[in-house]
Amino acid sequence: MTDAASSSVWTATVLTLYPDMFPGPLGLSLAGRALEEGKWALDARNIRDHADDKHRTVDDTPAGGGPGMVMRADVMCAAIDASSDAPGPLVYLTPRGVPLTQGLVREIAAGPGARFVCGRFEGVDERVFATRPGLEVSLGDFVLSGGEAAALTMIDACVRLLPGVMGAQASGDDESFENGLLEYPHYTRPQEFDGMEIPAVLTSGHHEKVREWRLHEAERITKERRPDLWAAYETKDAGAPLR
Amino acid sequence: MTDAASSSVWTATVLTLYPDMFPGPLGLSLAGRALEEGKWALDARNIRDHADDKHRTVDDTPAGGGPGMVMRADVMCAAIDASSDAPGPLVYLTPRGVPLTQGLVREIAAGPGARFVCGRFEGVDERVFATRPGLEVSLGDFVLSGGEAAALTMIDACVRLLPGVMGAQASGDDESFENGLLEYPHYTRPQEFDGMEIPAVLTSGHHEKVREWRLHEAERITKERRPDLWAAYETKDAGAPLR
Repeated sequence: MTDAASSSVWTATVLTLYPDMFPGPLGLSLAGRALEEGKWALDARNIRDHADDKHRTVDDTPAGGGPGMVMRADVMCAAIDASSDAPGPLVYLTPRGVPLTQGLVREIAAGPGARFVCGRFEGVDERVFATRPGLEVSLGDFVLSGGEAAALTMIDACVRLLPGVMGAQASGDDESFENGLLEYPHYTRPQEFDGMEIPAVLTSGHHEKVREWRLHEAERITKERRPDLWAAYETKDAGAPLR
Repeated sequence: MTDAASSSVWTATVLTLYPDMFPGPLGLSLAGRALEEGKWALDARNIRDHADDKHRTVDDTPAGGGPGMVMRADVMCAAIDASSDAPGPLVYLTPRGVPLTQGLVREIAAGPGARFVCGRFEGVDERVFATRPGLEVSLGDFVLSGGEAAALTMIDACVRLLPGVMGAQASGDDESFENGLLEYPHYTRPQEFDGMEIPAVLTSGHHEKVREWRLHEAERITKERRPDLWAAYETKDAGAPLR
């Protein structure tokens, strides 16, 4: 944990009922090394610290009835207001949000950080979104037990794009979604595995042919698997696609 | 960790270079309690245990050149083959996969579990997918530093649907995506917050009017935010939508 207010590196401030979930997987491997090296900062804050009754209540039953519990507007907003010292936009993780894309990841990664608000239970009182407007983001069309796994995922996507994190292995430009296509297939040694050889073009040393093969494969895979991405790719000026 | 082979509960077997990332956030809250109570099992296995050289090498440079490293087919496949004792389908987390939906989550949660294969680095040798075919799943159109955050997220989505996990708070039927709509807004006490009241209908005690209001709001929000979901909802037989 780093003091977000005094930090000039990209800072993820997380408002959650489970601060112990952080850094979690972000404490290891690429993101973990970058965190240790001070290339980004993480500040997980407990929403419950802003509950002011003796039971530290954060939720209550839904108005109008129904299952589950709803997170109270007064407690959530007190936590959000207290985070105004932290850099970056307010991001609500919610299945109702705009689906996360690599473009949005790039945008958030290019800023000073973000404040990630994690809901739990059945949902969050609507007056939180109404009175503290922010960017509502969804990972996809599925439901989680809370926003924490979504925040961890979104932070991971951002952190790998920060300066110096991927280092000499920087590979952000040639991967899935950066050019509107899914990624081409990868191969490495051994030359032969289970009766399958590495495609000859990749070991030909002919860089232009390698480039053409990879573009062709990326186009083929995108066309087969994601007609939606393919349609968007075809309608934009994408050079001279090989079909 | 539980011995997957001897378990009859839903079991997530994870093949990863970072087994210490598990259970991570799944060790707390809803999923964590259910794990302790034996309502599901988790078995994280290290892919590196299947590297057979003295440096325990799992990756190599990409054939054809380019940045990053590619995970070797021989090591990955040895790890996958050794997981054949574990229940459920083989699931590859990859941005090239089919986008995860709540329908797919329900399908996986209804089975005996799944084997989640987490790639790292630039990617995985294509011959892994060719010789050990499985279900390639993507969280969405963004890129992570590895499959681990995606596996944690997908497992969280599955576990909350397992029998007894949400318990008396079971709320699976009335939430986002279950009826093709985003969820309606939630409210709870206090009655007035920041000058905003809970909508009167919700405190009217009139159950049918509450139901109508919620459906109308779910439709309004879906129409505004997700024209794609709205179009699919309109074309299917969805009763008599209130527009």
